[in-house]
Amino acid sequence: MRVSMTKAVRALVVCLALLPGLGWAAQREFNMTIDEVTIEVAPGFVNKVFAFNGQVPGPLIHVKQGDEVTVHVTNNTTLPHTMHWHGVNQIGSWHNDGVPGITQDAIQPGESFTYKFTVDRPGSLWYHCHVNVWEHVATRGMWGPLIIDPKNPSDLEKKVTKDAILMMNTWESAYANTYGKGGAPQDVSDYFSVNAKSFPYTQPIRVKKGDVLRLRFFGAGDEFHEMHMHGHDMLITHKDGYPLAHPYYVDTISVGPGERYDAIVEMKNPGLFIMHDHVDKHMTNNGAMLGGPVTVFEYEGIKFDPFYAWKDKVYDPNFFYSESLAQGYGLFNNPTFQGKPIEQARRRR
Amino acid sequence: MRVSMTKAVRALVVCLALLPGLGWAAQREFNMTIDEVTIEVAPGFVNKVFAFNGQVPGPLIHVKQGDEVTVHVTNNTTLPHTMHWHGVNQIGSWHNDGVPGITQDAIQPGESFTYKFTVDRPGSLWYHCHVNVWEHVATRGMWGPLIIDPKNPSDLEKKVTKDAILMMNTWESAYANTYGKGGAPQDVSDYFSVNAKSFPYTQPIRVKKGDVLRLRFFGAGDEFHEMHMHGHDMLITHKDGYPLAHPYYVDTISVGPGERYDAIVEMKNPGLFIMHDHVDKHMTNNGAMLGGPVTVFEYEGIKFDPFYAWKDKVYDPNFFYSESLAQGYGLFNNPTFQGKPIEQARRRR
Amino acid sequence: MRVSMTKAVRALVVCLALLPGLGWAAQREFNMTIDEVTIEVAPGFVNKVFAFNGQVPGPLIHVKQGDEVTVHVTNNTTLPHTMHWHGVNQIGSWHNDGVPGITQDAIQPGESFTYKFTVDRPGSLWYHCHVNVWEHVATRGMWGPLIIDPKNPSDLEKKVTKDAILMMNTWESAYANTYGKGGAPQDVSDYFSVNAKSFPYTQPIRVKKGDVLRLRFFGAGDEFHEMHMHGHDMLITHKDGYPLAHPYYVDTISVGPGERYDAIVEMKNPGLFIMHDHVDKHMTNNGAMLGGPVTVFEYEGIKFDPFYAWKDKVYDPNFFYSESLAQGYGLFNNPTFQGKPIEQARRRR
Repeated sequence: MRVSMTKAVRALVVCLALLPGLGWAAQREFNMTIDEVTIEVAPGFVNKVFAFNGQVPGPLIHVKQGDEVTVHVTNNTTLPHTMHWHGVNQIGSWHNDGVPGITQDAIQPGESFTYKFTVDRPGSLWYHCHVNVWEHVATRGMWGPLIIDPKNPSDLEKKVTKDAILMMNTWESAYANTYGKGGAPQDVSDYFSVNAKSFPYTQPIRVKKGDVLRLRFFGAGDEFHEMHMHGHDMLITHKDGYPLAHPYYVDTISVGPGERYDAIVEMKNPGLFIMHDHVDKHMTNNGAMLGGPVTVFEYEGIKFDPFYAWKDKVYDPNFFYSESLAQGYGLFNNPTFQGKPIEQARRRR
Repeated sequence: MRVSMTKAVRALVVCLALLPGLGWAAQREFNMTIDEVTIEVAPGFVNKVFAFNGQVPGPLIHVKQGDEVTVHVTNNTTLPHTMHWHGVNQIGSWHNDGVPGITQDAIQPGESFTYKFTVDRPGSLWYHCHVNVWEHVATRGMWGPLIIDPKNPSDLEKKVTKDAILMMNTWESAYANTYGKGGAPQDVSDYFSVNAKSFPYTQPIRVKKGDVLRLRFFGAGDEFHEMHMHGHDMLITHKDGYPLAHPYYVDTISVGPGERYDAIVEMKNPGLFIMHDHVDKHMTNNGAMLGGPVTVFEYEGIKFDPFYAWKDKVYDPNFFYSESLAQGYGLFNNPTFQGKPIEQARRRR
Repeated sequence: MRVSMTKAVRALVVCLALLPGLGWAAQREFNMTIDEVTIEVAPGFVNKVFAFNGQVPGPLIHVKQGDEVTVHVTNNTTLPHTMHWHGVNQIGSWHNDGVPGITQDAIQPGESFTYKFTVDRPGSLWYHCHVNVWEHVATRGMWGPLIIDPKNPSDLEKKVTKDAILMMNTWESAYANTYGKGGAPQDVSDYFSVNAKSFPYTQPIRVKKGDVLRLRFFGAGDEFHEMHMHGHDMLITHKDGYPLAHPYYVDTISVGPGERYDAIVEMKNPGLFIMHDHVDKHMTNNGAMLGGPVTVFEYEGIKFDPFYAWKDKVYDPNFFYSESLAQGYGLFNNPTFQGKPIEQARRRR
């Protein structure tokens, strides 16, 4: 019964990119559910999550600065939630900020709530639950990307040919199967991921020489991630969505909880180059060899060596939302990130 | 007997802002004691501390760049201490730097020591003990703000209408009652606070539309705090008291141990907006629901909803030192932060 | 037998700074071994490491932007390794990037491998193993400095009179004696060091008034280090070897895993000033009093007080590589950092 209800709700999830108003202000209306599903983060490691539209990370919401956004949220889970739009200033709309006990009562199981606001500033923003964040955000996957295009992009931004979203986070296997637990100061995070997968379940990023790649890093979990890109100069252009007056180069960017950094990289060095978290313990799956938030930049035309770990990898070009980001405005569900309804998972055991 | 002695010493605590010298150089002389008291950080969580003038954080010392400062310190506790003036360069006065075994012998129990130095650079500085810092600083509250006004404030600084100090730190409940223990690498910090209180014991910051608010963040404890302000653009203007040539906007600022960041924020978005640590586990009191370093910006004229957690909160306008900071130069004790003498606490048990 | 083999290999370690080519491009060829030795990090704390040329940190490699570098590596240990040249972009030479399973097969015990690449960008770079980094990098000392002088140094860089390298890292005593273990998320780092030594085994930095000191900070371990310099304005000039358009002042610099920061400091305040990690627990050796990454700036002409902890310290002027850095280009072994071959250590027990 639960399954069919979830399916029914999911069927309602449509992206309504309505007629743009005068100037830039389009009105965009989305439906969102929160569901209890399981996801397999790393080989053999399955975690119960509260999933926006059934997926972790949540679906991409892609809009333009000045757009008026309406989101109808339905809580299909057994615990209360809200949605906070991290980075949206909620000018004149503070009751839509999504903070329980301050701007609203939490959305109880079975209930719905509608958020309505104007996206007043551009950049790499995100949304996440604001109830019991130590569990819901830190260990239950309640976050997704909210990308707001600027009215006036910089010259450098205009050169970007490919866009990728990397949301890093942490997991606590001790509470993977127990809703309502986890996130206490004593608890240990033992899995580390990008877009909710750990190597080898992560994906490469395919590029060609001449690409200008934009990497949008999100600190969605509870620890720092030191993202190190091999073979290239990463130009940090934005902090928390705000453009920096003076972008600066790094080879390793420290992304803390709640923070975002945008990097723009000229892809001009054909080869296979890894990007990984330089917090060494994050390069394991619970201490076992090579895991964590790892990707590889695969240049077009490079032949794979026999030793290449991903030489037989099935490629998912949308793992970093690159295809969704190229499709204009709207809400984009991503089948790759869909979890399994809890009941289904139970039956299989 | 102990109590009366403490009281007697406290009675000596006076702020002597003497006649200014030529130009900017005022001479300022202060008395400081270090006492053993308990503070209640969060509901039910009481911690033994070494308290400057009996309070945690310590009293505000507010002076002007170029002032000559003399501080007489008396150690009324059972362990040795010093006072380090973090950020003061001690030009020509290195024996006043407060580092045991390098610039002085530690101040033994019952002894006194006088520090004398010129405040050679402006900014958000602080003072703290430099003996056994893993215990005394990380878990015993031995720190307080030292705010040094610049001779030449920037145009932006001149616009500030309200000033607030936020000193974040961590606590280890396992050693709360045991002087001489705590701060080892294996130990777990399980309470997190701003100005030594965890939500709900923290306070809102009341503002009105048009205010220009300066937030001075201090990493006084042993972990990072990712301070996220809702609803506003935080302009980071100073690092460790040094003005940045190019201030930058953030919505989340990472404040590490020993670091300070100043943010200046135009308050132009009436409503109730939370500010909190985005390290999710820091949003609990030892794993229990909503705690930690939380504040709310309450705009004048906003009506409280029935669901507002602090709708009946008794407001302390000086919790973030805002009133003291508006009172000119001197040393300002803050009754809110006063602890209870240990003996008194014992009798009550 | 093992010992003599190691000695024989070590005898081969020579720095061949061959004739410079046209313009800047010199060809530099080095030999490197990886050996199993023990080092004593702190009093009584001995750790088994995989040591480049038998030492931790590894030998300084000092070259100039544009140089062509060849490094012959021989793995004398019982586990596989590679060498990654962190910060070198490997333009046109990606198979020399040193990442097992992506750019090469790991170098097995007893095998050799030759890396060849052009140092395409200047700065404070480093090299480290890229196999099982959570153990080899985080707890086995497999890292060393790779300093690449720029073709066009800035005016400020030209003023530098003294250069120092500070590589901070962490250790896990639980696995100190067990190769193949350590670095899991549950494991606790309990020793903290600079250049693989903890106070009191660290060293002062001797300067004279008028010196312009360059401090090169490296996050070589698995935690953040908040390096706080007393008595001076630290100007941060480079991030990860890249020059900043707008250097900024700090008194405390946060150095995360994989990151590097260069600071240039005018030494104009004679005295004795400590520099230490402001993560308080890092100031201990496994929780015991004063340890960790501590140094003292000792100005020429300052008389030591009787209470000075290092008043009788034997001074090693090359502990921070300052002497090696002043000797031009090449590979510089540092006897101070040499470990003891494992068998030798065993016999002594």
